[in-house]
Amino acid sequence: MRFGHFDDERREYVIDRPDTPLPWINYLGTEAYFGIISNTAGGYSFYRDARLRRLTRYRYNNAPMDLGGRYIYLRDEAEFWSPTWQPTQTELDDYECRHGLSYTRVASRYRGIKAETLYFVPLGETLEVWRLKVTNERDTAVSLSAFSSIEFCLWDAQDDATNYQRNFNTGQVEVVDGVIYHKTEYRERRDHFAYFACSEPLAGFDTSREAFLGPYRSWDRPLAVERGESGDSIAHGWQPHGSHHVKLTLEPGETREIGFVLGYWENPRDAKFDPPGSQTINKAGAQAKVATWLAQETVDAGLAALAARWEELLGGLRVQTPDADTDRMVNIWNAYQNMVTFNMSRSTSLYESGIGRGMGFRDSNQDLLGFVHMIPERARERILDIAATQLPTGGAYHQYQPLTKRGNNDIGSGFNDDPLWLILGVSAYIKESGDWGILDEPVPFDNAPGSEQSLYEHLKLSLRYTTERLGPHGLPLIGRADWNDCLNLNCFSDTPGEPFQTTENATGGVAESVFIAGQFVLAARSLAELAVHKDDDPAAYLTAAEKMTGSIAEHGWDGAWFRRAYDFHGNVIGSASNDEGQIFIEPQGMCIMGGVGLDDGTAVRALASVRERLATPHGIVLQQPAFSSYRIELGEISSYPPGYKENAGIFCHTNPWLMIAEAMVGNGDGAFDYYKRINPSAREEIGDLHRCEPYVYAQMIAGRDAPTHGEAKNSWLTGTAAWNYAAVTQWILGIRPELSGLRIAPVIPSSWSGFSAVRRFRGATYTITVHKEPGVPATSCSLVVDGVPVDGGVLPVAPAGSSVQVEAHLS
Amino acid sequence: MRFGHFDDERREYVIDRPDTPLPWINYLGTEAYFGIISNTAGGYSFYRDARLRRLTRYRYNNAPMDLGGRYIYLRDEAEFWSPTWQPTQTELDDYECRHGLSYTRVASRYRGIKAETLYFVPLGETLEVWRLKVTNERDTAVSLSAFSSIEFCLWDAQDDATNYQRNFNTGQVEVVDGVIYHKTEYRERRDHFAYFACSEPLAGFDTSREAFLGPYRSWDRPLAVERGESGDSIAHGWQPHGSHHVKLTLEPGETREIGFVLGYWENPRDAKFDPPGSQTINKAGAQAKVATWLAQETVDAGLAALAARWEELLGGLRVQTPDADTDRMVNIWNAYQNMVTFNMSRSTSLYESGIGRGMGFRDSNQDLLGFVHMIPERARERILDIAATQLPTGGAYHQYQPLTKRGNNDIGSGFNDDPLWLILGVSAYIKESGDWGILDEPVPFDNAPGSEQSLYEHLKLSLRYTTERLGPHGLPLIGRADWNDCLNLNCFSDTPGEPFQTTENATGGVAESVFIAGQFVLAARSLAELAVHKDDDPAAYLTAAEKMTGSIAEHGWDGAWFRRAYDFHGNVIGSASNDEGQIFIEPQGMCIMGGVGLDDGTAVRALASVRERLATPHGIVLQQPAFSSYRIELGEISSYPPGYKENAGIFCHTNPWLMIAEAMVGNGDGAFDYYKRINPSAREEIGDLHRCEPYVYAQMIAGRDAPTHGEAKNSWLTGTAAWNYAAVTQWILGIRPELSGLRIAPVIPSSWSGFSAVRRFRGATYTITVHKEPGVPATSCSLVVDGVPVDGGVLPVAPAGSSVQVEAHLS
Repeated sequence: MRFGHFDDERREYVIDRPDTPLPWINYLGTEAYFGIISNTAGGYSFYRDARLRRLTRYRYNNAPMDLGGRYIYLRDEAEFWSPTWQPTQTELDDYECRHGLSYTRVASRYRGIKAETLYFVPLGETLEVWRLKVTNERDTAVSLSAFSSIEFCLWDAQDDATNYQRNFNTGQVEVVDGVIYHKTEYRERRDHFAYFACSEPLAGFDTSREAFLGPYRSWDRPLAVERGESGDSIAHGWQPHGSHHVKLTLEPGETREIGFVLGYWENPRDAKFDPPGSQTINKAGAQAKVATWLAQETVDAGLAALAARWEELLGGLRVQTPDADTDRMVNIWNAYQNMVTFNMSRSTSLYESGIGRGMGFRDSNQDLLGFVHMIPERARERILDIAATQLPTGGAYHQYQPLTKRGNNDIGSGFNDDPLWLILGVSAYIKESGDWGILDEPVPFDNAPGSEQSLYEHLKLSLRYTTERLGPHGLPLIGRADWNDCLNLNCFSDTPGEPFQTTENATGGVAESVFIAGQFVLAARSLAELAVHKDDDPAAYLTAAEKMTGSIAEHGWDGAWFRRAYDFHGNVIGSASNDEGQIFIEPQGMCIMGGVGLDDGTAVRALASVRERLATPHGIVLQQPAFSSYRIELGEISSYPPGYKENAGIFCHTNPWLMIAEAMVGNGDGAFDYYKRINPSAREEIGDLHRCEPYVYAQMIAGRDAPTHGEAKNSWLTGTAAWNYAAVTQWILGIRPELSGLRIAPVIPSSWSGFSAVRRFRGATYTITVHKEPGVPATSCSLVVDGVPVDGGVLPVAPAGSSVQVEAHLS
Repeated sequence: MRFGHFDDERREYVIDRPDTPLPWINYLGTEAYFGIISNTAGGYSFYRDARLRRLTRYRYNNAPMDLGGRYIYLRDEAEFWSPTWQPTQTELDDYECRHGLSYTRVASRYRGIKAETLYFVPLGETLEVWRLKVTNERDTAVSLSAFSSIEFCLWDAQDDATNYQRNFNTGQVEVVDGVIYHKTEYRERRDHFAYFACSEPLAGFDTSREAFLGPYRSWDRPLAVERGESGDSIAHGWQPHGSHHVKLTLEPGETREIGFVLGYWENPRDAKFDPPGSQTINKAGAQAKVATWLAQETVDAGLAALAARWEELLGGLRVQTPDADTDRMVNIWNAYQNMVTFNMSRSTSLYESGIGRGMGFRDSNQDLLGFVHMIPERARERILDIAATQLPTGGAYHQYQPLTKRGNNDIGSGFNDDPLWLILGVSAYIKESGDWGILDEPVPFDNAPGSEQSLYEHLKLSLRYTTERLGPHGLPLIGRADWNDCLNLNCFSDTPGEPFQTTENATGGVAESVFIAGQFVLAARSLAELAVHKDDDPAAYLTAAEKMTGSIAEHGWDGAWFRRAYDFHGNVIGSASNDEGQIFIEPQGMCIMGGVGLDDGTAVRALASVRERLATPHGIVLQQPAFSSYRIELGEISSYPPGYKENAGIFCHTNPWLMIAEAMVGNGDGAFDYYKRINPSAREEIGDLHRCEPYVYAQMIAGRDAPTHGEAKNSWLTGTAAWNYAAVTQWILGIRPELSGLRIAPVIPSSWSGFSAVRRFRGATYTITVHKEPGVPATSCSLVVDGVPVDGGVLPVAPAGSSVQVEAHLS
């Protein structure tokens, strides 16, 4: 069952009914001011940090789901309703939500009143614009009231939701010229305030939630709206709120527009008050923004600029294939999700409350894969930020805080795959950009001034971190965990609620990870490639990779697939000899991506085992059989009910590794088959089962052991986005940046007759047309570049600004 | 305006309408299983720790306020409603909530259906009982459905409200024989589960919130109730919920009762599952409890036992005075609030979210004052727990965790009044109990085994902590803060949102506290009294007290009142020479309680200044003039808007100090006048202004600088309870435990002709009748004990079990 459809032309997803299985959200903002917005206008906004600078309040996991938002009410003489459905849930005659690239429109019609609301954050601004267009389609004039409504958050979202004995006393506002200023704590240490303005003369306003809603009421029937009159309330403590009341009379057929601006403003510390010495906030800067962004022309220009930005960003790669799901994901939604993931890391979604997590060392390196071709300069900055949190041991803080860019001591270090991701991230960046200079950048350790060494030295240390920490099988020690945060082999936690990732680990064990072994081979080979350019000797890295490959062959191969790990006591995990958890997806993907088993048939054998034992119609599950009970020696992975999350859920992040592996062994049909199983667009028809948005990847789909097999969760902020993008564009479509240039090596489904693509690469534009005889598989590719045959599969790097025509013939 | 009335006979407060200005709450449970419950059945339950073992989910600061609770729905053929008003808010024909001592009853009538719901936690049990009695007052038979509804919390309330990417996957339940078992995380490290049972055969059940409510609905119109049919849903992740559906047909006049039991059960780790090796929880223990507590006779007996417990607890002191507000607060509500405060510390109320705070070192010592006469053995245990967190320096952790009884490192130490409270707490305990043996108890420092010294040595060290930390005026250095947590003289915080209490303090300053000086005099004199008994020389303590008194006289007296402090740079605070914050309440109260100024007229002069400058009709504000702007050298006190909290709010905790001081100078009219201003019962008539419950003290009433002057906040969990109880019973009524026995020294209003009291003291029962000529003040008291005149004002200690008749004549 569908709940909407794609409008590929306008790059929008169009939602046809408000009661989607879950709130289907979109993101506003691309730089510093951000928000999430659901298809019924729920959500919240923040400036840079979703915990510490939250502008508006939102209630996670409430009933109704998705309460708190950017609400507008309309009221005629007879009744009132929400033109975005929530919060009144009035049954609308028409409803349509269009989630676009960094904007959302909700249009509806109710008893002859048409209303369209647009929300977006202009480029370069720390504010959001709402634009309400109301049309009277009745045959008589109508007197309407429009009420806006937001609830202010007292800035620190965690404190806001717990510390009431203080917070019910601190709320303060000012209302001047119809603009509502929320200034809680501005009197003391904050230099920032929020403002909420309306383009029309006000019939009234409210800044006290209770005055607006009335006692014991929710947003579904605010007293002020019910009676058609604001309270002109000034909040003193309790819950500061923002509501404007506008009255308008519309003749039949008449349309009126009302603008709202909600913004964040920060004053210099010595210019906080006006007049100086008073407690009245200096509003000059905010007033200028209000004047600018309430003007229709500015809004139109701002929208156009936003569209142009996305046109530019998406111009990095456009494809046209026989498969519409592939096209719209690659050209629009997966790229968009990559950028959102870059901006948000794992902080803010319907599942990430904005309170919990910093930027992941591992996450951020992987996210690079998805956005580096769109904004390589931001990728560069991100890499240097990440690398500066590396410890002198070569280890890494598992997370760092985006505001301070400092490592997070609460979570600490010891996830032994982390350092290797830095090599892979840097390698991906240089492959895309050709920016070898980054390797010479001086980068400190643990942000300590004076500790700077070149980024290249950081990478060498990252590799050494692994080789200095090998276990009895010559495989890397796992530490707290590897990529799978929930495989905690040194944890042995028996305390309820204790976080598996941060508890004191047991010492003296020998837990090793085959996954890290595979990742090491990949990273060592990547570093060897970089070494050549640095006039460093690659031999040591290649030798280390060989040696690790040998250890994998000897101790990591189970006969039909790669093993997963050895536990604290040296017992194997992910082997036919186990009763549960016999085969895991991660080492199959990572070892083959590292090139292990490609020359001796074990890769193909492992892939057959995956298909036989792990693949389901909804994607590839993480392991089988699921753990039916808690295993203290394995940790969090066994804490989930079977079929969910790491305990045999379809952890989508890992699926593209298998697509890549299938492509590496030349199985385009197999790779593409896996791709389609989790491609959200391809799952649109089963929206009532999938439940999450059909336009973005989810982290997880319930596995075959779960009672809700096929149900997705945790959409949007997941490494799935970057990895799927890499898998389909670089390995299936085969347009793959390498150090020497752009490789063209498609491994596409046998049924295809080819595809075309336009790829921006190091400043040049490549128009690529791929031809294949349909119905037969093909693995070799011959290239003709601007009419000239080219050997070796790699396009010569063209001058920046040039256009290159590429014809590729697969056979 | 009133919203109810006191039923003194039944020791209940009767609320007449559901829409009280704020939810008016009560507490269930007295030992290990606790809950809060509002007058419309909102609230939640937990086992021991409100953060880590929360059974049910509650949404603080939601709209409507107070969402989530112990809900019941009734449904006839035509419609459904909530007999406790929330959550459907159906307009009931009758409504009455009776908050009693550890139980709540809500009765209502709607279209001829009468429903009474009773909630309580039986003594000795880790469960709560709900009892619904439905009567058909219509003249025809009626077919009704009753639905119960609770939402389970996934145990750790903080994690439950933030970590959705995990928590939406972990929820698990079992339903067996109509009993709903909530077992999230039981499969892994938890040994505990919750159960929810119903006495009647079920027509259906739900354990999935979404199945029960329907998508995008709240508890005001659950789909299952609307359609009259449960979904028999089994939750897999998302939101586990508990709802039973019972169908019943009532003839005209017929009454039926339905019982519900919601409980917490913990199994031995080796008996978690049944059968062993399965993942099915072992329900044997819980099933036995269910069988017991669904039986009407058990419930009746349990209620009677609870009433008997309260009869016993309140029997420690009963008074009969000319003032009904005094009587009901002393005899019932203030004593009840003292016990709740003892049980909850500052963890769980409508303002304390159960997530934030541990037990306060200072708080707990002060709370003793209120409950020590009711349960001295628990006071003893509490004292030893507190003392064991004292540091080897004599300093104290500011808070400790109730589950572990360990000091809280996050908050740390350095609140320089803390150690002195231990002396005052122990002194109060020995005065009440005569248990000198506690001084010899070996008590560790910082809970370190082997570090034990006698409690008496702890007290000596506490005193020394102050004398070793004196400033340039010979006054005690303030450290992070003294009693006023918000006077942060070494903090100098300019970072938004940074907690004032835990930020790194500046060093090198000389900030001193006159408050601690007064407290030191009181504590040193108290220790001197104890020393006599210990054959220790009291002279050193008395000399120290004298010396400190001299420092106060020289540097702490401002000419008409006691100064407050000296800041980091040595500038005076709380002086006529200041522009704002010229006079503070705290040093006036504490210095006079320490005896400073009683002999030279300064006490009387200070009290006159308080009356002139700080007293308002709603109580005595904390200081004047309020701070109109943030002062970095003062810290959090100046962060509040003027009139709120510590910035010139009526911080009720401090008001009884002035009552005591007035009593000490013989001004019974003045003391009683202050008492009545903040006595919640005496404020019942202005309920629409006061807004909080009229049966318990609030921490704060907005001061005269606030736009909402007279509005109370943060009711229930405040040191106000203990101190007001001490002020009115020990100083105004003058029944005051001393080391040598019970002193009788009333300082009552001149209009009174006397009062009577029954006081339990060290096992004997004293029936005390006080006589005074009405209309004239009186300060001296002559005693006749069992017919024999007694000199000195102190009753000889009578043998335990004996009854003593006391006649007191005031003149």
